[in-house]
Amino acid sequence: MLVESIKEVRNIIKQWRSEGLSVGFVPTMGALHDGHQSLMERAVLENDRVVTSVFVNPTQFGPNEDFEAYPRDIKRDYEVCKKVGVHVVFTPQAESLYFPDKSTTVHISGLTDVLCGSKRPGHFDGVCLVVSKFFHIIQPDKTYFGQKDAQQVAVIKRMVRDLNFDIEIVPCPIVREADGLAKSSRNVYLSHEERKAALVLSRSLESAKSILDKGERNASILKAAMLSCIIQEPLAKIDYVEVVDSEDLHSIYGEITHTVLIPIAVYIGKTRLIDNIIYEIS
Amino acid sequence: MLVESIKEVRNIIKQWRSEGLSVGFVPTMGALHDGHQSLMERAVLENDRVVTSVFVNPTQFGPNEDFEAYPRDIKRDYEVCKKVGVHVVFTPQAESLYFPDKSTTVHISGLTDVLCGSKRPGHFDGVCLVVSKFFHIIQPDKTYFGQKDAQQVAVIKRMVRDLNFDIEIVPCPIVREADGLAKSSRNVYLSHEERKAALVLSRSLESAKSILDKGERNASILKAAMLSCIIQEPLAKIDYVEVVDSEDLHSIYGEITHTVLIPIAVYIGKTRLIDNIIYEIS
Repeated sequence: MLVESIKEVRNIIKQWRSEGLSVGFVPTMGALHDGHQSLMERAVLENDRVVTSVFVNPTQFGPNEDFEAYPRDIKRDYEVCKKVGVHVVFTPQAESLYFPDKSTTVHISGLTDVLCGSKRPGHFDGVCLVVSKFFHIIQPDKTYFGQKDAQQVAVIKRMVRDLNFDIEIVPCPIVREADGLAKSSRNVYLSHEERKAALVLSRSLESAKSILDKGERNASILKAAMLSCIIQEPLAKIDYVEVVDSEDLHSIYGEITHTVLIPIAVYIGKTRLIDNIIYEIS
Repeated sequence: MLVESIKEVRNIIKQWRSEGLSVGFVPTMGALHDGHQSLMERAVLENDRVVTSVFVNPTQFGPNEDFEAYPRDIKRDYEVCKKVGVHVVFTPQAESLYFPDKSTTVHISGLTDVLCGSKRPGHFDGVCLVVSKFFHIIQPDKTYFGQKDAQQVAVIKRMVRDLNFDIEIVPCPIVREADGLAKSSRNVYLSHEERKAALVLSRSLESAKSILDKGERNASILKAAMLSCIIQEPLAKIDYVEVVDSEDLHSIYGEITHTVLIPIAVYIGKTRLIDNIIYEIS
């Protein structure tokens, strides 16, 4: 069912709750690809009822970002959700979510000052605001996020911990194209040539993984290898290449002693792509 | 029942919810007086089950404020709650609520820059943080706040609106001593002489009300009358005297055309007292 009204979605969920049903939630900005589909499939498996939101959230885009250009196709998205077995697709209007005199900010310090946060000021404030609102509207038991947005997962986990939300955050593995490119709604921006160049992201992460597999534990050597890999691609412009603590996201330069996140952001032409791996050290 | 653990209070409330019972919540910092009691009595009347929290929240006190001195008597508070019919008294330890690396801020702009907010930087961030946490732990249907903290009521209402909390905020009238002094946990700080001087707060508000009753609508004339009244008391030092919009708290200097809040803050000796009236213009 496609539901636009906040009041209506609340009523549907209250009815489910009164029947003792569990509720899973998958927040999205639409332009659904196989990555989103994997989140929804898992949510359908693990919950009695599943709500997916499709909302291109204006407050998480910067003034020079692609809010206007961001791909929108609600008809197609709705078909994808239905096929997977999602029960309610929630598509609020921005005007019903945001009052003209909105005054509330939810800010996570530290974790949002690095990586994408340092390049996209205000982005995570926008994410935390809209996710808080959806959490209060849907009141899900579990919420599913793609591990591709690794910093988003860390930030939301911290918010849930610090504000005592009674919600389990379930991060789900990155889904990739056959050749390794991480699925992203922004991949549609890539020209044929750029699409090939974009493989440099997954290739550099694979090289990092194989270096770690061989026993190397120096984070700086790892970063150097990834940088060397990416600069060989003429269409690529590095935004960041990092090795960080997987929970608090602080940079690691010396020895890697515990589970790390290796996140990268690279412009391919004008399109900014991100990718990452988590490497567990046992 | 006295409950210290977050997990335990969650379990109790989940049990109530599974039985279809409604839940009312009264957040307090303890040192309960007749004002708190009136909130709890109303909550008991309007809900199947009532939780009162007793928690002197460190994050809403400034470095030079009275966090250490704030009166604490949990035994007495518990007796008051039991007598009124409160079902659970929730008394978390600060260590269980706040992680050493807590990173989340909930900030309301505009409404918190004026009145008490301008004199107590960070105070309302602390209030919003702890109230958000309690809202997520208790998940009440209704929450009761004293109108004496009028700015707190306006700020919490705004937060609930902006973050789509599914909670009704119920402001309750100020409870006064026989001679007019608004009940406050901080009244115990007053010496005998100061206690008499403190009447200047309610007296100035009464004079404002009687001027309005006579038809005067100029906010500046009203403020002048209140200021003249208060400066006659030698032990009183004015912190602020205001006439503001009752929702967004912006100052009114000219004609009063709609419902206004008239909030005042006055030091009596070293003790800072607040009081207010809401005047409805029909």
